[in-house]
Amino acid sequence: MSDKRQKPQKLKARLPRGFVDRTSADIHATNEMIEKIREVYERYGFDPVETPMFEYTDALGKFLPDADRPNEGVFSLQDDDDQWMSLRYDLTAPLARHVAENFNEIQLPYRTYRAGYVFRNEKPGPGRFRQFMQFDADTVGAAGVQADAEMCMMMADTMEALGIKRGDYVIRVNNRKVLDGVMEAIGVDDPTQKLAVLRALDKHDKFGTEGVLLLLGDGRTDESGDRTKGAGLNSEQIKLIIPFLAGSTMVPADQSRSRVRPLVGRPSKEDSILWVDNSWNSIEAARLIVGATPSGAAGIEELELMLNLFEQSGYGPDRIAINTTIIRGLEYYTGPVFEAELTFDVTNEKGEEVVFGSVGGGGRYDGLVSRFMGQPVPATGFSIGVSRLMTALKNLGKLGRDEAVAPVLVTVMDGDVESMGRYQRFTQDLRNAGIRAEMYQGNWKKFGNQLKYADRRGCPIAIIQGGDERAEGVVQIKDLIEGKRLSGEIEDNAAWREARVAQETVPEAELVAKVREILAAQAEDRRRAKDA
Amino acid sequence: MSDKRQKPQKLKARLPRGFVDRTSADIHATNEMIEKIREVYERYGFDPVETPMFEYTDALGKFLPDADRPNEGVFSLQDDDDQWMSLRYDLTAPLARHVAENFNEIQLPYRTYRAGYVFRNEKPGPGRFRQFMQFDADTVGAAGVQADAEMCMMMADTMEALGIKRGDYVIRVNNRKVLDGVMEAIGVDDPTQKLAVLRALDKHDKFGTEGVLLLLGDGRTDESGDRTKGAGLNSEQIKLIIPFLAGSTMVPADQSRSRVRPLVGRPSKEDSILWVDNSWNSIEAARLIVGATPSGAAGIEELELMLNLFEQSGYGPDRIAINTTIIRGLEYYTGPVFEAELTFDVTNEKGEEVVFGSVGGGGRYDGLVSRFMGQPVPATGFSIGVSRLMTALKNLGKLGRDEAVAPVLVTVMDGDVESMGRYQRFTQDLRNAGIRAEMYQGNWKKFGNQLKYADRRGCPIAIIQGGDERAEGVVQIKDLIEGKRLSGEIEDNAAWREARVAQETVPEAELVAKVREILAAQAEDRRRAKDA
Repeated sequence: MSDKRQKPQKLKARLPRGFVDRTSADIHATNEMIEKIREVYERYGFDPVETPMFEYTDALGKFLPDADRPNEGVFSLQDDDDQWMSLRYDLTAPLARHVAENFNEIQLPYRTYRAGYVFRNEKPGPGRFRQFMQFDADTVGAAGVQADAEMCMMMADTMEALGIKRGDYVIRVNNRKVLDGVMEAIGVDDPTQKLAVLRALDKHDKFGTEGVLLLLGDGRTDESGDRTKGAGLNSEQIKLIIPFLAGSTMVPADQSRSRVRPLVGRPSKEDSILWVDNSWNSIEAARLIVGATPSGAAGIEELELMLNLFEQSGYGPDRIAINTTIIRGLEYYTGPVFEAELTFDVTNEKGEEVVFGSVGGGGRYDGLVSRFMGQPVPATGFSIGVSRLMTALKNLGKLGRDEAVAPVLVTVMDGDVESMGRYQRFTQDLRNAGIRAEMYQGNWKKFGNQLKYADRRGCPIAIIQGGDERAEGVVQIKDLIEGKRLSGEIEDNAAWREARVAQETVPEAELVAKVREILAAQAEDRRRAKDA
Repeated sequence: MSDKRQKPQKLKARLPRGFVDRTSADIHATNEMIEKIREVYERYGFDPVETPMFEYTDALGKFLPDADRPNEGVFSLQDDDDQWMSLRYDLTAPLARHVAENFNEIQLPYRTYRAGYVFRNEKPGPGRFRQFMQFDADTVGAAGVQADAEMCMMMADTMEALGIKRGDYVIRVNNRKVLDGVMEAIGVDDPTQKLAVLRALDKHDKFGTEGVLLLLGDGRTDESGDRTKGAGLNSEQIKLIIPFLAGSTMVPADQSRSRVRPLVGRPSKEDSILWVDNSWNSIEAARLIVGATPSGAAGIEELELMLNLFEQSGYGPDRIAINTTIIRGLEYYTGPVFEAELTFDVTNEKGEEVVFGSVGGGGRYDGLVSRFMGQPVPATGFSIGVSRLMTALKNLGKLGRDEAVAPVLVTVMDGDVESMGRYQRFTQDLRNAGIRAEMYQGNWKKFGNQLKYADRRGCPIAIIQGGDERAEGVVQIKDLIEGKRLSGEIEDNAAWREARVAQETVPEAELVAKVREILAAQAEDRRRAKDA
């Protein structure tokens, strides 16, 4: 009320920084995608469970945000009873809380899935948003790697259900214990140094091989002169780590796919660059370096078990590949880790052909639920980045092909009560017959506006009834698609009337049948155009 | 990592106050419901558009939260550039911001819909949550009441698409201008007093007729002795307001439906109580009181126009009824207001039979987009309370009837690598055939646990293969539904083995076909049980 009484103060309409509105096309595409993913998860025996946007801050675990990126925080506020709450920054920590809170009622093993928004209080940038959607699946209470193997097969099936063909994706599998074995092999025991090594390895996408090597050693100075301390490994140690380092993005595109290259003996530094997709051999290669360490041996045994499950179930290395160079950044993984990578090329913002890359990943996190419990609770799961996957599917032309047809427009020629009632009835008759339709709701007096509206909206058909037609009990039905083809751009009222648009005059009672007939003909045209 | 090195500190797992986790059944029901609503909105020519959870606080409009309920606030926090952001508390204010921000690109009239969570920072209570879902539809840029009439018809069609039969719901329509006419008729001109009158009228659900009458007059003292100041009307003024006061919940259930009672002359106070569903007559009745005032006359004319559109389109008073006692609390409504009310009886927490009541509402809010613009922007829309509507549909038995069948369980009898591979393969074979299936992922050594799991999870079939069967290349298939019927409660391994459960032994190659056959037989049983 107040803004009406006082002199109106014009507010500025603007989205908060780092947030976006979602368009109709995006929403339809997301729904289509989520529906397909959901179908796969359900088939695998998973059920949906969802948690609210807020959690108590302590339940999220303070140790989770990356310590050297303080900006990557959460949105927090204090409740009126002084407790701190935060918006969830992923879907895993809230699931852990949910399971712990309802532990006595939940039947383990507990397979669930959920899609939802997560929030990151970080500096927004191009393509980096502060609210985005994840789609997760998790199994809690299953200690064996069968549960991890199932996750990988489910990810592979999901990719194919979305129309990504075999060869255009690969699920890559590693094991955190293999990395622990590397630490043991090179004699790194101090937890802080271990973490520094893991973080350095995880920086491959950001700084490339050169940068990672510096971060493993003494440290790295960036262009602005800022220095990041290194993990302090010596050159002997670094040499042994190299085979576990290469990231897929540094591999020339022509070498990036499914090349199996048998390794003989300990790999040289040069070999390591070619290792990336030697997936089927990398268990043997890893064994050379870490096979004698307790963690390494355990990790390799788990990889072999998983490999057997994949082979028995018919998932070859073209779908799921063991790859010991996969690093997952999050510190809570305790066993198998996996990543869904799209291997087809796209052109990046610099005009370079690059492999599309990761659209999701996950792994075993046996410690996360246990934090709340007095007992160990094994868990494994994975998360799909919904918008990133959608970008990929758009690139592949796999989304939004059957876009919604715009509504039939019932135009308004006269504004008296009786005429309006008729227009409304035509509209409802069409809707009741399951046909998308609307009556023009703007200022009807400028008929040109109605035509412009129909054009911009992409309306397939316009229904027109003036005084003469009303007297005769008939309506004009204009096929706007056909009309457009005949008359070129429809610009104004005059052009419309003069153009030899396809139109028919039918009795009111035949309106619905005629519209249905024209829509069917248009659909047939589209089908032929697509096949042509 | 840190929680592993240090002595583990047990965190308490708890939901933040006023928030809930959503179960599988709830999520399936919501999805089913939203899909049906979406289908109606699309048919009406509406397209989806969504905004993020956050808005700048000033964009939400400080005048919106109800001034005498300071607890009914929003969740706000300060961004790192010091700007205040709030979680949206409805879907209308963010849409207004979206339209204003993209005004040049948007083709008016603009019909959109959206489902999403909204947040209220208020004291949680039974059935009152701080995060809940709304499903809105809005038309921006349409000044005529045709747009409002369309909203009402869309609400009616939505109710029926959800399976609520005619007679079990009614869309009630009033006009804010009629209420303004009442103010004019009783000579209330001061904006503060007007607001006080509107708020008093809106308190009917809370305080009943008695309470509202007190609030219209001098004021009301509650049980604790707290006094709320009244609107200060005298008894002559109050008398004229009474016909616009009665709320549906105060009407005895046996009088609450579709009773048309012609009114002769000015209604008495007693009449007003019976007015509630005299919808078809209430335009005439209202005219007696407010017809001579400028606002009242305008409001009545709009109601009559809408009534004509309803009649022409075949929406009689059993679906959409004019009702001049409808008050919408929000202060931004400027013209028609409407409410979807479910008229069937339910038993409340006190064991009383009451009318279910409102599941959504809306109206014309011509001022909300204009706040951002230098020009008037008409708009109308409505909002459905998703959880409340879901509760209603559950009451009517209209949701979750085709609940997801639990997965087929492939049990694990032996843990060697080769056996595990086989179990996994059976599972994948079933999944590939589109059958919901899972391999047991818990500790397989206690077979009783697997049976308990199957039982609690409601698995329809269990697949079993021990060493002997494996040697022969066969599997046992147990029909758990049939088995349960024969053997009563399955409690342990022994009971399972002894019970005369329905089971068959088939070659591995026939597994999928046999499972499909049993599932079809079970589905047939369910169908017969339902029809019986």
